Amino acid sequence: MGIKDWLKKAKEELYSKQLWKSLRAEFFGSILYVIFGCGCLMNWTNDNTVKLFASVLSFGISYSILVKTLGSTSGGHLNPAVTVSLLCTRYISLLRGLFYILVQIIGSICGAAILYGIIPSEIRHDLGVTKVHKNVDNVRAFGVEFLATFIVIFTYFTTLENKNNVLVPDSVVCGLSISLSQLFAFNLTGASINPARSIGPALIHNSWDNHWIYWVGPILGGIFGGFTHEYTNKQSADLQNYQT
Amino acid sequence: MGIKDWLKKAKEELYSKQLWKSLRAEFFGSILYVIFGCGCLMNWTNDNTVKLFASVLSFGISYSILVKTLGSTSGGHLNPAVTVSLLCTRYISLLRGLFYILVQIIGSICGAAILYGIIPSEIRHDLGVTKVHKNVDNVRAFGVEFLATFIVIFTYFTTLENKNNVLVPDSVVCGLSISLSQLFAFNLTGASINPARSIGPALIHNSWDNHWIYWVGPILGGIFGGFTHEYTNKQSADLQNYQT
Amino acid sequence: MGIKDWLKKAKEELYSKQLWKSLRAEFFGSILYVIFGCGCLMNWTNDNTVKLFASVLSFGISYSILVKTLGSTSGGHLNPAVTVSLLCTRYISLLRGLFYILVQIIGSICGAAILYGIIPSEIRHDLGVTKVHKNVDNVRAFGVEFLATFIVIFTYFTTLENKNNVLVPDSVVCGLSISLSQLFAFNLTGASINPARSIGPALIHNSWDNHWIYWVGPILGGIFGGFTHEYTNKQSADLQNYQT
Amino acid sequence: MGIKDWLKKAKEELYSKQLWKSLRAEFFGSILYVIFGCGCLMNWTNDNTVKLFASVLSFGISYSILVKTLGSTSGGHLNPAVTVSLLCTRYISLLRGLFYILVQIIGSICGAAILYGIIPSEIRHDLGVTKVHKNVDNVRAFGVEFLATFIVIFTYFTTLENKNNVLVPDSVVCGLSISLSQLFAFNLTGASINPARSIGPALIHNSWDNHWIYWVGPILGGIFGGFTHEYTNKQSADLQNYQT
Repeated sequence: MGIKDWLKKAKEELYSKQLWKSLRAEFFGSILYVIFGCGCLMNWTNDNTVKLFASVLSFGISYSILVKTLGSTSGGHLNPAVTVSLLCTRYISLLRGLFYILVQIIGSICGAAILYGIIPSEIRHDLGVTKVHKNVDNVRAFGVEFLATFIVIFTYFTTLENKNNVLVPDSVVCGLSISLSQLFAFNLTGASINPARSIGPALIHNSWDNHWIYWVGPILGGIFGGFTHEYTNKQSADLQNYQT
Repeated sequence: MGIKDWLKKAKEELYSKQLWKSLRAEFFGSILYVIFGCGCLMNWTNDNTVKLFASVLSFGISYSILVKTLGSTSGGHLNPAVTVSLLCTRYISLLRGLFYILVQIIGSICGAAILYGIIPSEIRHDLGVTKVHKNVDNVRAFGVEFLATFIVIFTYFTTLENKNNVLVPDSVVCGLSISLSQLFAFNLTGASINPARSIGPALIHNSWDNHWIYWVGPILGGIFGGFTHEYTNKQSADLQNYQT
Repeated sequence: MGIKDWLKKAKEELYSKQLWKSLRAEFFGSILYVIFGCGCLMNWTNDNTVKLFASVLSFGISYSILVKTLGSTSGGHLNPAVTVSLLCTRYISLLRGLFYILVQIIGSICGAAILYGIIPSEIRHDLGVTKVHKNVDNVRAFGVEFLATFIVIFTYFTTLENKNNVLVPDSVVCGLSISLSQLFAFNLTGASINPARSIGPALIHNSWDNHWIYWVGPILGGIFGGFTHEYTNKQSADLQNYQT
Repeated sequence: MGIKDWLKKAKEELYSKQLWKSLRAEFFGSILYVIFGCGCLMNWTNDNTVKLFASVLSFGISYSILVKTLGSTSGGHLNPAVTVSLLCTRYISLLRGLFYILVQIIGSICGAAILYGIIPSEIRHDLGVTKVHKNVDNVRAFGVEFLATFIVIFTYFTTLENKNNVLVPDSVVCGLSISLSQLFAFNLTGASINPARSIGPALIHNSWDNHWIYWVGPILGGIFGGFTHEYTNKQSADLQNYQT
């Protein structure tokens, strides 16, 4: 396919109603993911155990609900790591991928801003910014984010189904994989798994320590998870030629 | 439709057996929602963390079970915010809406009265009255109730399905959305999300501080959630012309 | 039907292979319900909050698994309150009902004996005996057990489906209703909901205080729950003429 | 069948692509099961209650996700006790059984090695090695592992379904049965239920106290669970003649 064909196809997609509906869903979903996921971490207590279990529930349930409600429109990515791995495995087009990531980031920033406004300053703490624990070095933090995102994206890919020309994952199992990742990584790196979820609070709270880890770890882990699925699972062949 | 037609239709509905069955289910469900939802908050401990997780489980599971058992009769609203948003989006008639809200309120009061009788005074505390935390101002409290109800009603609308002429939501996902809202709002406003759930304990315990927030927040959040669904999700067109 | 016909029918049933398979399943399930339900309460800690959440998980998950694995054979009662309410609503025959209750009691005693053997004495505590809290009077204890069983049996009846001539409830929802009841009643009465679950530990540990409450409360609550379903839900008519 | 036929059949299987795909899935799944299951136990806290509930969630969710994602390829054993009981009940061939167990052990060792590398030494503790509590004698420890594995394997067998010539269990119910076993056995024996899950951390951490219990208990409990299903449940006849 020449560059001219590609441009023509991109232009067509740009005018399609479905793309804009998907972007609206991704934007809207990213706002809600940050509000409810991070918002539940803000309690009057500083007990880390409470935060751990709150995070397991809040991000897991939020993702599960949002995939259920928005999945049939946009696929329920809500996560640049998901979008990039679907891009690398060629399930979505470059244009759609870039737009998705853009609105996910903007959505997350809006969500963090709403949280900043709505949560009283006494319990706002660090606004749910993901932080690497002081006893965890950068290589390990990268490894933890890599592994935690790997299982999430691998689950996402394996449960994908084609519903009316949109690839939708299973909402319950994907929610569970997010819960597992939170339980695994929360005490080590804050369990981002999702660069967009990290950038919103980081910007509003202006806290950028080790921020690169929350981009490199999840995205590489996600790509690795996507290709692992592609080269191992047998169902994937059915979806191979499909591109949204 | 003239006022005469409307009156005639309302009269017909008033004589329909299905309306009265639905009212019985809503009444009965509201009693159980308050007994089990609020009742689980009453422990010998005053530890707020225990109450938080108990509330996440109790209201989430209660709603999930009641939607499963009563949903096919009345739709499993059990919540004036749900009823008002279904009324505004014209899924239910005005008559049905008003009657539902009435029995939900009466049911909640009965439920709170039963709890008052059955729970020993040592652990009855405030009978599960929803209270705004002293460090949370009214605007924020409104915002929290608005957001928490928004996600619940948005989930309710998105998972609606027409089963034998009754619109029934998905019991598991709706239960999860209630759990998420409890986790988000419990420490800030007591997580009402449901004006009827608030009025019962408030009346029996005679505690009306900031009570208006639990009506205005959930109902506005609910209407906003309902219309958000109407103008974004594609399935909604199928249900558009349907009115119970 | 004269007494002679009845005796003839009872004799036929007595020789049917299905009855004996069901009894085996009920016996086996009651053992496992007591071992895993009560066994999970035995920790090195005496912290009541840990016990509360352990009980919510252990009885809920146990019942859910056992209904899933044994439900298609016997219906997964595992509880005299379930059996009696199915008997009163005429879904099962008198003979089957009496035999079920008998093996449930024997199974529970065996389960408690196995627990007594397997759990070290340091953490065996009271072997999971259900006890009324010292600040709860008998009338309230009765009311709590009545209500807690009511919701369990009402859920059981509402989710019943006829699978190959056996009435099987929904395993997940029934498990959730048990969890809710534990959360509600554990701190007040120990949350029996099930006379058989109470009698096993009571016999092995020889502790019979207020034991009658765990028979009268659940059984009356169960019967009330069963009839509430019969007279309200519309599906029930389909099953009305059915008797295992 | 003579030994010659058997050798011929084994050779055929050895060359089949499906066997090697299954082994890859089992290897890969065992790595992830140990990383996420054991990894979630490693927190900055030493509070045993936190570990208990973390273990209930981590192993339960991990198994649930892995059965969902890998089950359709290999059946999602990830556990020599599952493999041996399927071998004894003749659902899988000897060759496949031995290879499965081998890769499960190697996978677990790799998983433990990755954990050793990725988790900072301050919270690595004992790397999730399963230990018998000092107040629990060996016979009881054996009994606990036996019972805990029994319920897991019984659930596994009962929910087996033939999907495209692979026997796959129900992912949610199996995950719940693992959670129940963790809750039951964690404080007594560390809740292995799975010899492969025990051997990896034991080798890397070089800690072999009572290690035999984690082989004998689960495998005997598993065989007992498998045969209990075979001789009681009626569905099993359909699968009887099936051998992968």
